[in-house]
Amino acid sequence: MKVIDEMTGCRLVLASQSPRRAELLRQAGFRFEIHPTFVDEGLLTENDPVQHVASLALLKARAIAEQYDQAVIIGADTVVVLDGSILGKPATVDEATAMLHRLSGRTHEVYTGFALLQKPGNRAVVEHERTIVHFAELQSDEIKAYVATGEAMDKAGGYGIQGRAALFIDRIEGCYFNVVGFPLHKFYITLRDFVIRQDR
Amino acid sequence: MKVIDEMTGCRLVLASQSPRRAELLRQAGFRFEIHPTFVDEGLLTENDPVQHVASLALLKARAIAEQYDQAVIIGADTVVVLDGSILGKPATVDEATAMLHRLSGRTHEVYTGFALLQKPGNRAVVEHERTIVHFAELQSDEIKAYVATGEAMDKAGGYGIQGRAALFIDRIEGCYFNVVGFPLHKFYITLRDFVIRQDR
Repeated sequence: MKVIDEMTGCRLVLASQSPRRAELLRQAGFRFEIHPTFVDEGLLTENDPVQHVASLALLKARAIAEQYDQAVIIGADTVVVLDGSILGKPATVDEATAMLHRLSGRTHEVYTGFALLQKPGNRAVVEHERTIVHFAELQSDEIKAYVATGEAMDKAGGYGIQGRAALFIDRIEGCYFNVVGFPLHKFYITLRDFVIRQDR
Repeated sequence: MKVIDEMTGCRLVLASQSPRRAELLRQAGFRFEIHPTFVDEGLLTENDPVQHVASLALLKARAIAEQYDQAVIIGADTVVVLDGSILGKPATVDEATAMLHRLSGRTHEVYTGFALLQKPGNRAVVEHERTIVHFAELQSDEIKAYVATGEAMDKAGGYGIQGRAALFIDRIEGCYFNVVGFPLHKFYITLRDFVIRQDR
């Protein structure tokens, strides 16, 4: 079923399997369809975080674009960056534990890239947002208890700020929703501009 | 029914009628009881935001404390501060609209105070957290549409960052959850310390 967003008058399609992104868009009042995409992130050897998230966001949007005649497809990707290296999603409990030990007592960055791709015509815009996150010093038993909840496993950097890891984070600088996985304000102004240009 | 929190081994009682505070504590993994309190905020003529939220937090906790033999009672209060004056909850649509026009394109502060009160013995600790919030410039029609959703009405400053107002906020500096109404990290470290001292 086609869903038309009231704010923009567009058919919005979220090319993402992340329940968190869908939840953020929903709470912000957007109406949209969800079309999960599977992009092999391992194929991307890009080490620059902005290039990485921008490329993956666009790849995800493009992966499903051909299936729509008239829509704005939304792709997004989020990474955690510490000491210049990208932390992805931990594959094992040990990897999650090691990531949290690295983040403990330190400041890291979260980058989310998003792409808007319009059908017909393939006009696209790609943007990103960056937020600084300060982790408190964690004890080994806190990390152990956190990883045991299972929350760490499907998240970039091995934590979810919107879950129990909220307790570990002193402060952030920037957009909170960017850390959850989708920068709502930046998306809003970018989408508004993208749609207005289409109307001209 | 008595509920014992696993993390602290305490019976925690939240003296609040705010569904947002309960939701934040729940998502962070705490187990607790809810006991709504009704404190007449109009009685408080305190203009200093820290004194204001600290006093109200403690008043809310004290208001129900006598009904418990053994528990840690949690009180909290949140205000929005702009140009040195406290913005409470708007009483009318016009008041909400006026508040949002004042916040538009400006930076304001959010203060949440919380109190922990232990029964028996009435040992108490009061803490607060402060977060800086940057609002984007809003158009009159955006404010009108936002107020029409009804979201503004029961919230300090006339907005909910966890709802559609997420679209209006560029960035924050500090604890996000403090803006929603409860500073999870500060609460966590304060509670941990409070409970450890009790054990000695």
